[in-house]
Amino acid sequence: MKKQLDIIGQGLPKHDAGLRVSGKAIYGQDIVLPGMLYGAILRTEHPSASFSLDLTDALALPGVVCILTADDVDVNRIGYKRDHPVLKQGEVCCIRDEIAAVAAETREIAEAAVRRIKVQYEVRKPCCDPFDALQEEAPLINRYASGKFSNKNIAETFHYAHGDLDAERTRSRIILNRRFTLPRMTHACLGPSSITADYDVVSRKLKLYSSTQVPFLYQRDMAHALKMPPSDIRIIQPIIGGGFGSKLDMYPFEVICALLSMRTGRPVQIVYSRKEEFIASPTRQPMVIDLTAGIDADGKFTFREVDIVKDNGAYTSWGATTPFVIMQAFSSLYKVRACRFDAKAVYTHNVFAGSFRGYGNPQATFALERMIDLLADAIGMDKAVIRRINANEPGEITGQGLHYETCGHGECLDVVIRQSADARSTAIDAASRDRARYRSGVGFASMLHVGGGAKIYRSDGCGTTVRIDPYGHCTIITGSTEIGQGSETVLAMIAAEELGISLDRITVINSDTDVKPWDVGVHASRTSFVAGNSLLGAIAILRPKLESKARQLLQSGDIDLLFRNGRIETNDGEAHIALDKVVREMHFGEPNELAVASYFYEPPSQFQDAGFKGNVSGSYAFAAQAIEVEVDCCTGNVRVKNVWVAQDVGKVLNQMLLEGQIHGGVLQGIGYALYEELLMDEGYILNPNFHNYKLPTAADVPPIHFHPVETYDRHGPYGAKGVGEAPLIPTAAAIANAVSNAIGVEISSLPVTPEKVLRALEENKHKLHLA
Amino acid sequence: MKKQLDIIGQGLPKHDAGLRVSGKAIYGQDIVLPGMLYGAILRTEHPSASFSLDLTDALALPGVVCILTADDVDVNRIGYKRDHPVLKQGEVCCIRDEIAAVAAETREIAEAAVRRIKVQYEVRKPCCDPFDALQEEAPLINRYASGKFSNKNIAETFHYAHGDLDAERTRSRIILNRRFTLPRMTHACLGPSSITADYDVVSRKLKLYSSTQVPFLYQRDMAHALKMPPSDIRIIQPIIGGGFGSKLDMYPFEVICALLSMRTGRPVQIVYSRKEEFIASPTRQPMVIDLTAGIDADGKFTFREVDIVKDNGAYTSWGATTPFVIMQAFSSLYKVRACRFDAKAVYTHNVFAGSFRGYGNPQATFALERMIDLLADAIGMDKAVIRRINANEPGEITGQGLHYETCGHGECLDVVIRQSADARSTAIDAASRDRARYRSGVGFASMLHVGGGAKIYRSDGCGTTVRIDPYGHCTIITGSTEIGQGSETVLAMIAAEELGISLDRITVINSDTDVKPWDVGVHASRTSFVAGNSLLGAIAILRPKLESKARQLLQSGDIDLLFRNGRIETNDGEAHIALDKVVREMHFGEPNELAVASYFYEPPSQFQDAGFKGNVSGSYAFAAQAIEVEVDCCTGNVRVKNVWVAQDVGKVLNQMLLEGQIHGGVLQGIGYALYEELLMDEGYILNPNFHNYKLPTAADVPPIHFHPVETYDRHGPYGAKGVGEAPLIPTAAAIANAVSNAIGVEISSLPVTPEKVLRALEENKHKLHLA
Repeated sequence: MKKQLDIIGQGLPKHDAGLRVSGKAIYGQDIVLPGMLYGAILRTEHPSASFSLDLTDALALPGVVCILTADDVDVNRIGYKRDHPVLKQGEVCCIRDEIAAVAAETREIAEAAVRRIKVQYEVRKPCCDPFDALQEEAPLINRYASGKFSNKNIAETFHYAHGDLDAERTRSRIILNRRFTLPRMTHACLGPSSITADYDVVSRKLKLYSSTQVPFLYQRDMAHALKMPPSDIRIIQPIIGGGFGSKLDMYPFEVICALLSMRTGRPVQIVYSRKEEFIASPTRQPMVIDLTAGIDADGKFTFREVDIVKDNGAYTSWGATTPFVIMQAFSSLYKVRACRFDAKAVYTHNVFAGSFRGYGNPQATFALERMIDLLADAIGMDKAVIRRINANEPGEITGQGLHYETCGHGECLDVVIRQSADARSTAIDAASRDRARYRSGVGFASMLHVGGGAKIYRSDGCGTTVRIDPYGHCTIITGSTEIGQGSETVLAMIAAEELGISLDRITVINSDTDVKPWDVGVHASRTSFVAGNSLLGAIAILRPKLESKARQLLQSGDIDLLFRNGRIETNDGEAHIALDKVVREMHFGEPNELAVASYFYEPPSQFQDAGFKGNVSGSYAFAAQAIEVEVDCCTGNVRVKNVWVAQDVGKVLNQMLLEGQIHGGVLQGIGYALYEELLMDEGYILNPNFHNYKLPTAADVPPIHFHPVETYDRHGPYGAKGVGEAPLIPTAAAIANAVSNAIGVEISSLPVTPEKVLRALEENKHKLHLA
Repeated sequence: MKKQLDIIGQGLPKHDAGLRVSGKAIYGQDIVLPGMLYGAILRTEHPSASFSLDLTDALALPGVVCILTADDVDVNRIGYKRDHPVLKQGEVCCIRDEIAAVAAETREIAEAAVRRIKVQYEVRKPCCDPFDALQEEAPLINRYASGKFSNKNIAETFHYAHGDLDAERTRSRIILNRRFTLPRMTHACLGPSSITADYDVVSRKLKLYSSTQVPFLYQRDMAHALKMPPSDIRIIQPIIGGGFGSKLDMYPFEVICALLSMRTGRPVQIVYSRKEEFIASPTRQPMVIDLTAGIDADGKFTFREVDIVKDNGAYTSWGATTPFVIMQAFSSLYKVRACRFDAKAVYTHNVFAGSFRGYGNPQATFALERMIDLLADAIGMDKAVIRRINANEPGEITGQGLHYETCGHGECLDVVIRQSADARSTAIDAASRDRARYRSGVGFASMLHVGGGAKIYRSDGCGTTVRIDPYGHCTIITGSTEIGQGSETVLAMIAAEELGISLDRITVINSDTDVKPWDVGVHASRTSFVAGNSLLGAIAILRPKLESKARQLLQSGDIDLLFRNGRIETNDGEAHIALDKVVREMHFGEPNELAVASYFYEPPSQFQDAGFKGNVSGSYAFAAQAIEVEVDCCTGNVRVKNVWVAQDVGKVLNQMLLEGQIHGGVLQGIGYALYEELLMDEGYILNPNFHNYKLPTAADVPPIHFHPVETYDRHGPYGAKGVGEAPLIPTAAAIANAVSNAIGVEISSLPVTPEKVLRALEENKHKLHLA
């Protein structure tokens, strides 16, 4: 029998909030194992060079237990394209490259030994621009490149199309073409990357305390690298201090740590320094997007043609697959009748890019939403109206085959258009005052993202075991992974809701591949949707068992029962029995039975076909943001004054965590829009520290006005959709549109730094005078 | 389809042997948590005293974070009779008593602070003999004694009877009466007791890294002590360095550690020093057994009357319930037509006794088997023959209601009688040489012990979840606890046998109450039996799921399938499919399903009634030992020359671990027989160190000739019975009988020290001359 929702929808803090703020959380760097050694990695000083090593001095240092170079190890290459040697042999191709690794009795000794390794470099001129790398005369950057593309330095290509492009071009009233340039942003996780490897020489098993967000794929990848069976590898996931997609790939330092442990027979721990975190973590994909788009006389979008060149860096990570998501925005955000999409990832001597919250979508959305503003201006339509009339709708099946069973796009737009109306009218006034120092503007942007997982692996499923013990304590063993997004808390709320017990009676177990059932990992904003459904499936098996025993104990016959207040009770509350007592009777009474159930949930989604068509997700999330900025025309500074966010979340599961995601996402979007760029010069990183890499802080949080739109997707848990990546995706686009709106210039690259603003103002001086 | 056993029965090392010998095992003292404090306990200097404390100096020590005394805490008393205050208030009643506890930044500071606490004692004369304590004028020893017995210092009583005592007395040809005195032996675990408590002030949950062997009962007891719900307490069990029953009770130091963590909000660790391990660990129950026994003209046992006074020490532990087991030996080992049994546990100012491998049975068996030798001598029967004709038999239901569905007692006796025949004839020759310095003798003893659990709690069951992951790795999540007995290895072997996979593909998860299903804990030699059956039950659910998917994939129709070599194959081996592939198809193919199953096994046993009658175990184990000793009549030293062991194990599951249990048990029995006694003088412990407490070492292991008797009990896994406690139980009795046989004196107390041997020889000089 269905009861009203008591817990779902409430705003409750993360269940591990106390642990985190009190310093009790055990992060990777807090792990101490008996006899543990500390590892450190020597990286190249030059992005492109051949090199030779002299280890003599380093080996002589007391406390050094082992030094490994490429000559000492027998491993497979790693990475999405298996083009990445774990330790580089004689030749480096980016500034992150690992050339030797030390294990020593203390961290200090390991670092000192690394400094004592003598390296002779023969430095080469790096090739750091992907367009240069595509030239005939460019050097071969990665010698393990597949070689199956038209150019030796192409790592991967994507081609997609739908609709009749020629017809739509003809039908267009306006066609515009622009180039958009997106920067290299890094995750800047506050918790540094770490790993502890513990290889047992007797059983030949490897235990890894790893911050991976995809433990089961990682287990497989690590096994491939080390030439071991995956079943000999166990992954334990300590609490991690920030993921945002950076832990989707497996990196050389992790394999190296395992190798050091295998070689020494002792546990080995590697923790990144802050500088290393900047140099040797992945980045968001930098790319150049050439977009041509048309609009008909009614303001309807006719077609989009997209050509993207992505700077792959020296090696290929999961990040190479971001075009899956990028093309989705171009093909299916707003109705568009035809689309052609081509993307290539090109090797350069830069550090390699990876996966980052939004997975290419912020880049795509920036280009698309900037273009929409340009089209609106060109055809003379209001920027709100043009979006509203092209908005996606429920029931729509897009050209790419995405099926929007529910769709709150229109409602999201309506909300932010209404909420930002006052600011808009003020902004337009201000913009008219050409010579004011401070000029306000409002920009819009929408976003579309998968909201019910993304079928990119054979299964997009998640397993769950749920059990209640004789003290009434419930344990959820979920395949899913918590990387700070709050999914543990949401799962506990679901169990609390369904079993009528309080949250403090619930533990979520999710950090050991030998314990938890299979799951594809944290990505694509899938966890609450997929793991939530999986948990609901397990509870749907468990509840009837409990009800049956309760009926027997209550002698209540075949009437409906409610799970409420730690009890199972009849609807009128007259007869009831404590849940823990029911469990004890199940365990200890005939026929002795555990209160446990397991379930595997596979979302109702499809693999896309060779042409990238198919309904890849169980559900789709939409959002719209309107952002008001104020530009200081004297300094070029952009201040975000207000952010209106409306997001189709399906159903609010936890108001507070949802707002947390919104705030965090918007702030990360502000960083992407205005501040953050990992600056590289000829393959060298210029700002590997928080002093020079500008991250927005709590002080930079603007007023964020969040309105959740509930569309109750029938596939989602209680109707919910994924929410994690969405709030970041449209922010930079909306800010860029707002800046453009404020000062009447085109913004076609990020971040919108004061320098760029001042330069744009200077270049447009004449035009502005005319306006 | 049944296949031949491939793995069960083999001699395989413990799966964690490598971890243990390589120093990688993480024991309680290896745990390091962020911000952890170290606890130390101040114990009384006098066994009976009132006291007052001055903490000023201790609190002034830099690094001291918290000091707790009884005045600072609000807790319930602990122990089987709830007669034990965790911190003692103004009054102590044994030398183990905890009077204050410190938490400090380092272990050294904590210990220094303990030394700085000033205590003023008003010392009283302790009452240390239980017979004294039963006198009217004795002081009240434990003010929380229940008071429901005839004497204020009685902690617990047991009364049992079966048969017609008067008739059997009349029918007896010989009736003998003797008093036997059993010493205080301590477990002497090489791994010191430890606990780490981690209380989270925000969630108000307590995590305990505890070496308890009964985690679920411990959770409940800890909750009672701390006045918390048990569901707020989570027990993690690190690897422990020896249990032997010493971790059955919860002790004050564990509650104190939790209190220190709750008070400071930081993790706190307490690790015993070696001295503390001697002073503040439990001991085997010291007792005085008055036994009267009769025998008829045919050499059949007629009746036994038993009166036992047990030295309870100052508090009551689980050890108070050892008469459950003691009475079983008297009522049911060898056929005996009538039995009366009375036992009382009496408070004294001694340290309190607890549970110890054998749980009273070594004491009972010593008295009983000594008496049998005396009866044999008295009636002129051979000591082998008298045992053989009274041996238990299959199908027998004893006076107490124990149902021996299988019984290898007779066969065990036959084996050791045959094997020791040569030694016996030599020994008799030697004994005839009255004046020889070295005299050999052979002694026999049998034992009966529960072999299929013991229903002492509402459930004697165990839950298991077993799963296989898509890489073909199997995880057994078992409720049972490993304390070194090797049950993890046996469970892994069962899964390997049933699923046809190699042992290195199996992990056993058994150390977290939030993960593992309920189980009553490690005691009563129950783990392989109960947890093994539980695992078999889970596999019996899992296998058909795997078979069904394999049939579908093999298109094999409804034929029998075998699990073999990591594959599921048809009987002829022609068609086969890898197990991991079957699991992947289950997960990832329609209808997506986990390869997981859970089961709760409850053994077919009964609670005993108020008169202690009932079939308390699912199976019964039997053993016989013959031991040859050589007595040095000059020094009094006893050397064990040969030990013949025959034990009804039901079915050998792992030959090597079984032999390990036999060797360890026999050696512990030798210690009990010859060396070990925690010496107390007026409540003070005289030998709290390995220098003065003599533990047999590897150098003392005699030749042990082990013959397993397989009776294939239908209730046991593959027919197996519990084996863990058995080998210790008859050893001391057999050695005492052998010494008596060698030198012709009565041995009525343990240990048989050189002093006792020389005194006995001196006292019997006249008698020996006559012989």
